[in-house]
Amino acid sequence: MELSNSQLLEELISVQGVASDESRIKSFIKEYVLRNQGKWKSKPHIIDGIGFQDAMILVFGNPRTAVYAHIDTIGYSVGYDNELIRVGGPKNIDGTILVGNDSQGEVEGELMIFENEYNQQRLQLSGDRTIDRGTLLSFKPDFKETKEYIQSPYMDNRLGVFVALQLAETLEHGAIVFSTYEEHGGNSVGACAKYLMNNYDVFQALICDITWVTHGVVHKGGVAVSMRDSMLPRRKYLNKILAIAKDSGVKYQLEVESAGGSDGSVLQKSDLPIDWCFIGAPEDNVHTPKEKVYKKDIEAMIELYQVLMNKL
Amino acid sequence: MELSNSQLLEELISVQGVASDESRIKSFIKEYVLRNQGKWKSKPHIIDGIGFQDAMILVFGNPRTAVYAHIDTIGYSVGYDNELIRVGGPKNIDGTILVGNDSQGEVEGELMIFENEYNQQRLQLSGDRTIDRGTLLSFKPDFKETKEYIQSPYMDNRLGVFVALQLAETLEHGAIVFSTYEEHGGNSVGACAKYLMNNYDVFQALICDITWVTHGVVHKGGVAVSMRDSMLPRRKYLNKILAIAKDSGVKYQLEVESAGGSDGSVLQKSDLPIDWCFIGAPEDNVHTPKEKVYKKDIEAMIELYQVLMNKL
Amino acid sequence: MELSNSQLLEELISVQGVASDESRIKSFIKEYVLRNQGKWKSKPHIIDGIGFQDAMILVFGNPRTAVYAHIDTIGYSVGYDNELIRVGGPKNIDGTILVGNDSQGEVEGELMIFENEYNQQRLQLSGDRTIDRGTLLSFKPDFKETKEYIQSPYMDNRLGVFVALQLAETLEHGAIVFSTYEEHGGNSVGACAKYLMNNYDVFQALICDITWVTHGVVHKGGVAVSMRDSMLPRRKYLNKILAIAKDSGVKYQLEVESAGGSDGSVLQKSDLPIDWCFIGAPEDNVHTPKEKVYKKDIEAMIELYQVLMNKL
Repeated sequence: MELSNSQLLEELISVQGVASDESRIKSFIKEYVLRNQGKWKSKPHIIDGIGFQDAMILVFGNPRTAVYAHIDTIGYSVGYDNELIRVGGPKNIDGTILVGNDSQGEVEGELMIFENEYNQQRLQLSGDRTIDRGTLLSFKPDFKETKEYIQSPYMDNRLGVFVALQLAETLEHGAIVFSTYEEHGGNSVGACAKYLMNNYDVFQALICDITWVTHGVVHKGGVAVSMRDSMLPRRKYLNKILAIAKDSGVKYQLEVESAGGSDGSVLQKSDLPIDWCFIGAPEDNVHTPKEKVYKKDIEAMIELYQVLMNKL
Repeated sequence: MELSNSQLLEELISVQGVASDESRIKSFIKEYVLRNQGKWKSKPHIIDGIGFQDAMILVFGNPRTAVYAHIDTIGYSVGYDNELIRVGGPKNIDGTILVGNDSQGEVEGELMIFENEYNQQRLQLSGDRTIDRGTLLSFKPDFKETKEYIQSPYMDNRLGVFVALQLAETLEHGAIVFSTYEEHGGNSVGACAKYLMNNYDVFQALICDITWVTHGVVHKGGVAVSMRDSMLPRRKYLNKILAIAKDSGVKYQLEVESAGGSDGSVLQKSDLPIDWCFIGAPEDNVHTPKEKVYKKDIEAMIELYQVLMNKL
Repeated sequence: MELSNSQLLEELISVQGVASDESRIKSFIKEYVLRNQGKWKSKPHIIDGIGFQDAMILVFGNPRTAVYAHIDTIGYSVGYDNELIRVGGPKNIDGTILVGNDSQGEVEGELMIFENEYNQQRLQLSGDRTIDRGTLLSFKPDFKETKEYIQSPYMDNRLGVFVALQLAETLEHGAIVFSTYEEHGGNSVGACAKYLMNNYDVFQALICDITWVTHGVVHKGGVAVSMRDSMLPRRKYLNKILAIAKDSGVKYQLEVESAGGSDGSVLQKSDLPIDWCFIGAPEDNVHTPKEKVYKKDIEAMIELYQVLMNKL
């Protein structure tokens, strides 16, 4: 089986967008929307620019619910003398190939881990050249599609962006927020949610992101509806979603975890009375260059979003 | 001595309301208000529904100060195969009886603690039946009133709610916020505070919650006015409160702690310029089914709130 | 070389203002502004009072960018029986002299560190008298100016306030925010930023604060432009600043750290779409009574702020 349109996913993954530096991936998505919206069921109103940093909102018809897909990725900052500092929580693996650009041109090197006598790790980029301070590096793209799986860096969350763009094709009423900074300490979710609440009375959110394979959430189990991670969605809203999912016939599984967070956590901790729920396919090899997702779980994710945006 | 109206406290404790699932306790409180407000000195304006999730505000006259009493409790989520995950910070005690409901009906079981070779704890619910994923459980109600003390699960914060409802009987000018999610990572405090600030120019808050017996704050010492916990109230506002408390003749004690937080912390970390101060009776056996409060400390708490809402 | 106007810096340091208790230092700064604004190039509009707690904003002309200088300091709260609890993150050094006031008058004593068998520290104030609970203490002022350096408690951030007041002398278009609570868990930054955004369309912030000497950021290296600490400024905004700094001829150095935070972190975590960047001279002996800054780095800091507020 082929995932329809998987070339778009590969392209999304090829555009660098480490948290804080999302301008290029934002432009890529905006151009894709402008180029394709003519073929969509409903043409969205595009909201971006001043007051939205590198985030972007698509508003279709009269939205009741907003889908949040973060466009940033994890990565590394180059510190002093090629030391590496994490952006978000990448898993540090010796030999991982990192890429980026500085004033001297393209950068490509290996992540090297040094451990001192106190078991403290120092991360270093291989190579002779001293890279500009503050340069942002990310995993080198390496997209692999097999019969059943897609494996690539940054399935989290370019796959969520991909799903949102598939959803856009048939969406009549709803909003899609392409948010920033999710992987590192804060983001644009609050500003976008406030805008949608004040201008469109949108009080419902769905977090379109990728979750983890655990002993309770597995490949081939369908899309995961998260009943909690470190945060808990409001039960009344969750129950509404579960009732629709149950009726839908789409394959889904229930997630109950103690850790992890998402754009939903940002909404939860804000002073915005917005309900949220995380819904996404599970991946293994989380936060490594080999994030792997089962293709039919992706299809279930797209289908469940289509049903929910219609009925919620 | 009898605490007047302690039956109401017992009823409040009997209604489940684990953080994220406050709809039932909110309805209970709303019905109580509707049934009793005719006997009150002043009839409040009730604000709830869309934009407030499961929180509720009572506005009396022209409010200058808002009292915050959180209506949620700590508890547990059922994970995979009856594993238990904490909601908020309950003290895990082997054999604690937990109750709740799932699709098969009522749930009652014991908390079991298993420790592995690395001293890591796994929490498990006893019993043969596999409980629905995500089911929320709470301590089984067990209300005990003696001559001097009340002991029960969830004095934190059904006692704060009780005090707020006693205060409501004579309140002429002021607001009472029944807030949600206090025990777990976020809440509705910000939305309610913003509403009161924008619509009623309310810039002052009192946090009506229960604190801890420590070597500096003791049973029979009166209501505690907290000078700090993990957060510090603004000194100018605190000084105003201390001057009123001193003049009032009500028995109180000063708390200065390094840890702990409350709805006040949420206000502190928000972008709302709202002054706050935590004022509440102390309990011991914190976050266990045996939270215990001295009855005259409760009376002092009610009295101090009456004075402060009048003079602040 | 003499730092021009260093007497003002010494005066700023002599006024106590532990986080949560900034009313006196705020009054001092306001009086300074009222007394001196007649000599300034442009007279600011002063915004303070209700809705701003102990913070204050100066608005000059048509601002595009706001400078944030926090007016609070680290220190200690007196707990039970003269125990000391930290406000912010002071470095605990045995014998440090602390000062303050309580109902019995002036307080002066030494910080004593006791360690128990588990290596847990208890901090205690020396002296026979029991100090009022909740009394706030700070490092005793001890200002030293040599040919090359200034050393004093609270260079962080009275030096930032000093720089902002020097900048005010020639500022034509811009805002200066004197913020509170930066050292302890929250502050007034959000309220001020929201006000400036809503009333003046200000979406740009510069964090005028003091950073740390590390192996990458050194005395005599000029003012530090921070490319990241625990948080990352948005790259697009950072690039704009770096281009102006490069052209300016002012001596500056690039900071890339993994830890630390500032008023910028508060903006980052808020729902306000405000860009921010930390720019400040480096000090060593951070959070001790001997914070030390190279004088020409201070001059570079003033100069870079002048250029940026003009061109950004």
